[in-house]
Amino acid sequence: MPFTRAGISLVRALKHNPNKSNYILTSQIRTYSGKATKLLYEDYGEPAKVVKVVEETLSKVKPNEVLVKILAAPVNPADINTIEGKYPSKPKLPAVPGNEGVGRILEVGSDVTNLAVGDHVVPLQQNLGTWRTHAVLPAEAFLKVPLELGLVPAATLTVNPCTAFRMLRDFVDLKPGDVVIQNGANSAVGQFVIQIARTWGIKTVNIVRNRPEIDKLKDYLNCLGASVVLTEEELRATDIFKTEKFAKPRLALNCVGGKSATEIMRHLQNSCPIVTYGGMSREPVTVATSALIFKDIQVRGFWMSAWSKKNATSEERFEMFDELICMMVNKELKEAEHTLISFSDYAEALKNTLNPKGQGKKYILNFNT
Amino acid sequence: MPFTRAGISLVRALKHNPNKSNYILTSQIRTYSGKATKLLYEDYGEPAKVVKVVEETLSKVKPNEVLVKILAAPVNPADINTIEGKYPSKPKLPAVPGNEGVGRILEVGSDVTNLAVGDHVVPLQQNLGTWRTHAVLPAEAFLKVPLELGLVPAATLTVNPCTAFRMLRDFVDLKPGDVVIQNGANSAVGQFVIQIARTWGIKTVNIVRNRPEIDKLKDYLNCLGASVVLTEEELRATDIFKTEKFAKPRLALNCVGGKSATEIMRHLQNSCPIVTYGGMSREPVTVATSALIFKDIQVRGFWMSAWSKKNATSEERFEMFDELICMMVNKELKEAEHTLISFSDYAEALKNTLNPKGQGKKYILNFNT
Repeated sequence: MPFTRAGISLVRALKHNPNKSNYILTSQIRTYSGKATKLLYEDYGEPAKVVKVVEETLSKVKPNEVLVKILAAPVNPADINTIEGKYPSKPKLPAVPGNEGVGRILEVGSDVTNLAVGDHVVPLQQNLGTWRTHAVLPAEAFLKVPLELGLVPAATLTVNPCTAFRMLRDFVDLKPGDVVIQNGANSAVGQFVIQIARTWGIKTVNIVRNRPEIDKLKDYLNCLGASVVLTEEELRATDIFKTEKFAKPRLALNCVGGKSATEIMRHLQNSCPIVTYGGMSREPVTVATSALIFKDIQVRGFWMSAWSKKNATSEERFEMFDELICMMVNKELKEAEHTLISFSDYAEALKNTLNPKGQGKKYILNFNT
Repeated sequence: MPFTRAGISLVRALKHNPNKSNYILTSQIRTYSGKATKLLYEDYGEPAKVVKVVEETLSKVKPNEVLVKILAAPVNPADINTIEGKYPSKPKLPAVPGNEGVGRILEVGSDVTNLAVGDHVVPLQQNLGTWRTHAVLPAEAFLKVPLELGLVPAATLTVNPCTAFRMLRDFVDLKPGDVVIQNGANSAVGQFVIQIARTWGIKTVNIVRNRPEIDKLKDYLNCLGASVVLTEEELRATDIFKTEKFAKPRLALNCVGGKSATEIMRHLQNSCPIVTYGGMSREPVTVATSALIFKDIQVRGFWMSAWSKKNATSEERFEMFDELICMMVNKELKEAEHTLISFSDYAEALKNTLNPKGQGKKYILNFNT
């Protein structure tokens, strides 16, 4: 019952945060003409070559369907890999790209009771194709979110915050005071790990690569709620786990691989897991035989798409959305850094998202201009 | 209630295998003089240097104790590592070496009700110190085994067959027809994996290193019940998982590490584990990030000592002993290849057990001469 749940979120959100200033007005939306502009690719390949702009006249809304005006949709690295055909999750072609986003309901079919005109929704299904101005789709493909949730938090709700949430929830039964160690702590997921852990009373030991202005990055992550931020070099020399302040971590989160993964694994308590959700170094995860046998270290992986598919209609999925939305509305979760870009400039976002120079830069297509 | 369980085993064993020819007569045991000869080490170090022969007069048997005459005790690689101080399981010094063995009860304390003179027993505790002619120890340190169980199967019951049993039982709920892949399939544990899997109706894909007379080794493992035996090169080229005969494995067992581990992991079904229990190549286990994230491959380790400690008095431990003993008495499990050596020649066994030239040669100290 996602919609009821979202309704509960809304009520709770209003209770916690009666100030509606976070509500981004959507009254600027242009009148719907019956036509939509969408991106489309008919073959897998280089996005600049295969993605085209297509105009279409939308079909009438059937009883179980809704007409949605997309307001914002991020461009994630996985979207680019999907277009390239390099991602394990392969939509049927031709396909509209875009896996995340937020939209506004403009019309509902006669059988739809849980969504109403004006509601904001996010996709509940993978690869729904959010890079288009409007879509007519089954109502069950969407989750209602409260209007109080900002457009950017809504558009980026279903992947990164959920990944952080599930990794903290599903692998170890963490108690307040327990310690989690993670590398790539400044990644989008890493920042949510810090913030969700903080709200749950869990300490985080956050590892980042050394860089110019490292202190600025440390300050930023400390402000999010990091218990401590260390460079990889500092981690190798640290004695924080020998003090009383930090117990040995019960969970390690890895989005780097290679030596970095090995280093964070070294500090784990026996019989605890290291969970891999990315591989930024492009090096595999290497585990000493003795760590597996004598320390019972458990090497696991996590993929949000697979979890969502498997738990599509599960209670815990909607509880997670509810809890995350509350945290966001209550400003306990800061939205990820991003660059808003007009939908008409989509080509720039496609070009730069996987560009190493633009690393960390996250584009969000804005349909509201 | 181990003794009752062993009693059940005995009854079942007799029922299944009324022929008692497997019973090795222990009537040759010399009369007990009140003295014992034991090996002892006071410091960790090279076995040839630190292990000494000590004569002792044994204390009287207390109400909760038993006097045991050791009949046979294997020399495992882990025993050598323990003496060297290189094994994570470190007995208090001075210590009598020897972790496995079988003994005969010569005397029981007044409170002991579950063991009787003449019973055969194996140690239930780690590092009990089996390399001695006699010991006075608490009765609870021993499990009664049926006399029908040969001395060698009894002396080598608690590590290798149990490792194979638990790895096949505890990581995946295997059903008849399911497939397990393992490397180092000719190892002592590997041979038990083949045989236990066969009795449970589970198929095994067995990987071994190429060698002269490879066909002889294949024949041997096939006779034990291997579904198929492949060299590492043959595995890389095989299409057996594309035929109907073999489903993709639901469990991979690794005692080699390095490339061999990577190769067997490649064939696993999604969301299935590779369990490491050894590292013969001395190379770590390397896992592709994509295998962790997209295939949800789970990389685990298994250490029999830790399991036994954690499950010291658990039902499933004694059910395991019961089932294994039945299989052994019924000749469903062949005893591992070994070399019997007189206790007085222990130095030869210490010297050769970790010698690469003697690889695979397992010495069993024979106290019955």
